[in-house]
Amino acid sequence: MLKVTGYAAKHSFSRLKKYEFERAAAKAHEVEIEVLFCGVCHSDIHQVKNEWSNTVYPCVPGHEVVGRVTKVGPAVTRHAVGDMVGVGCMIDSCGKCASCRDGDQNYCESPNSWLATYNGPMQPASKAGGENIYGVDNTFGGYSNLLVVKEDFVLKIPAGLKPEVAAPILCAGVTTYSPLKHWNVQAGDKVGVIGMGGLGHMAAKLAKAMGAEVTLFTSTRDKIEEARKLGVDAVLESDKDALEKLASSFDFMLSTVPEKHDLNPFVQLLKRDATLCVVGALEPLAPVNNMQVAFMRRSVAGSLIGNIAETQEVLDFCAQHDIGPEIEMIRIQDINDAYKKVEGGDVRFRYVIDMASLKEEMAE
Amino acid sequence: MLKVTGYAAKHSFSRLKKYEFERAAAKAHEVEIEVLFCGVCHSDIHQVKNEWSNTVYPCVPGHEVVGRVTKVGPAVTRHAVGDMVGVGCMIDSCGKCASCRDGDQNYCESPNSWLATYNGPMQPASKAGGENIYGVDNTFGGYSNLLVVKEDFVLKIPAGLKPEVAAPILCAGVTTYSPLKHWNVQAGDKVGVIGMGGLGHMAAKLAKAMGAEVTLFTSTRDKIEEARKLGVDAVLESDKDALEKLASSFDFMLSTVPEKHDLNPFVQLLKRDATLCVVGALEPLAPVNNMQVAFMRRSVAGSLIGNIAETQEVLDFCAQHDIGPEIEMIRIQDINDAYKKVEGGDVRFRYVIDMASLKEEMAE
Repeated sequence: MLKVTGYAAKHSFSRLKKYEFERAAAKAHEVEIEVLFCGVCHSDIHQVKNEWSNTVYPCVPGHEVVGRVTKVGPAVTRHAVGDMVGVGCMIDSCGKCASCRDGDQNYCESPNSWLATYNGPMQPASKAGGENIYGVDNTFGGYSNLLVVKEDFVLKIPAGLKPEVAAPILCAGVTTYSPLKHWNVQAGDKVGVIGMGGLGHMAAKLAKAMGAEVTLFTSTRDKIEEARKLGVDAVLESDKDALEKLASSFDFMLSTVPEKHDLNPFVQLLKRDATLCVVGALEPLAPVNNMQVAFMRRSVAGSLIGNIAETQEVLDFCAQHDIGPEIEMIRIQDINDAYKKVEGGDVRFRYVIDMASLKEEMAE
Repeated sequence: MLKVTGYAAKHSFSRLKKYEFERAAAKAHEVEIEVLFCGVCHSDIHQVKNEWSNTVYPCVPGHEVVGRVTKVGPAVTRHAVGDMVGVGCMIDSCGKCASCRDGDQNYCESPNSWLATYNGPMQPASKAGGENIYGVDNTFGGYSNLLVVKEDFVLKIPAGLKPEVAAPILCAGVTTYSPLKHWNVQAGDKVGVIGMGGLGHMAAKLAKAMGAEVTLFTSTRDKIEEARKLGVDAVLESDKDALEKLASSFDFMLSTVPEKHDLNPFVQLLKRDATLCVVGALEPLAPVNNMQVAFMRRSVAGSLIGNIAETQEVLDFCAQHDIGPEIEMIRIQDINDAYKKVEGGDVRFRYVIDMASLKEEMAE
């Protein structure tokens, strides 16, 4: 067993604090990774606070992990000691169901669904008829100095990407890239992105790099100018005249708002047969008026992160197009303040923890 | 001008009564039709009661109209005097927008959208910046002895279909056929139909004739046996065990319930990437939980009737497969009682008005 130091929440109402635990050493197909950087995702906060009623404590969040390979199991072929690698939201899946066979591990149909990088199986034994194919009830994420992960779930960080910039691509990047690809966004398409946080600003950059004409919708007046700096159009959600002018004009829309949100003003902006995909809010949505949905045979869809191949693809795509998230570096000791700022929409646009700060604390 | 007798509601709270009005005689491209049968659609009741807040009074409903051509304008080429023909929900569209050019008149993107068989333009001038490309604020439907319609919006009733059986195909039939085709239902697919009324029982018959494996979901215990008589599986909506066994198993689902309805139990029955299309309720839907939608990249869509080509296709399809709606014939004088029964789910499964009953009243 390996001694590991991380930051954990013990209860839904507790602050994150230093937490020591153990991980099993790398098995044949596994890779040991020294964590260098870890992005802070809004879902970390939902999970820590048990807002999805499924949190297993202690909770060591972190699923936008970049680090260096320090050891490899004897059967590992894809990674070598010294490689700069990444770990996203998943560290295992059943490998046998229709989704896994299609490479869509993020839609794993086993009773336990996929194994999350932290918080254990997406469907715990209690929701899976007592089954647990992964043999663990909880997993501990990247807010820690060391991770051990199956090589197939470890991504390569391209040389052209700064490792700290790569971190948020592992969740915010692929969560927005996957639906843009799935709904076949093409150069020249009109794409609307709702919300300009960690996911929204990445979605805008990715869609723009795909050649789409992008409009960002935000409820924050200050972000209009910031969106324009990214080279995209920006509209204040409350500007009804602007919305009216955009009626039935979008080929695809992506809602990245991390909570329940009125979608109706945006449904009306979709062209006939177009889709609004919700990736931000994983909860009951505000009522959608089917009069507007049916009127143009529109769809309201949802999408959950992305598969492993797409995660590698978006890392490579970002390196190739020289894009990446806007990040603010923080120390692990500032994580509780950072959460408050994320909740207040105060971050521009993604916090990344410099895990060197954890090392200082370990040396103490 | 032609003298016409129909049945109309004068206000949202009034019963339908005999009403005399005029129609312009058939112009060059128009066809005059003696109405023989008219289906009673649940939307007739919504419209009469102004439940969509857009009813123009007097309201002469009826958009499942079958009759015989009695006159044709000099430029008419598609129909001849004596032909058995049908008129569905639309009698005109702009003909110029992207949707119309694609033959999807039911998604006409002109400011007034399409011209409904009754109640005038789908988007009245008040909602279209004062515009009215059709020059009429109201139109009068098939609860009348005579209709005059542009030939392009008149359907041919195939010889193999009884005219009274053909009537509900013009709305209930095409409204369910169009999404089954659009979402590409194939032989062997598993299709779920929610609600077993006029639309639902037609959807089940059509999907079955397409070779799909059909399950009907109903909240009415009595309808389980009736569904099985149609040769399809049937499940009581409240049977949670049965629903659980069907999780993630459907390629396509169609909700035909004519009012707000909890879709969440059905969303969970969709396979990865599958769609639940709502055609019954044209109103704000009950909140849909995006956790379940996103978990399998599912979609909740809407669809509105079908285009003219699809309407002809479904008539021909029904004749070819020897299927059609289950109908109960009524007299026009019984329309107000029939509405109450439709609202109570008491009809098996579509009322069709024998318009000979109106003639008796005209002779009086």
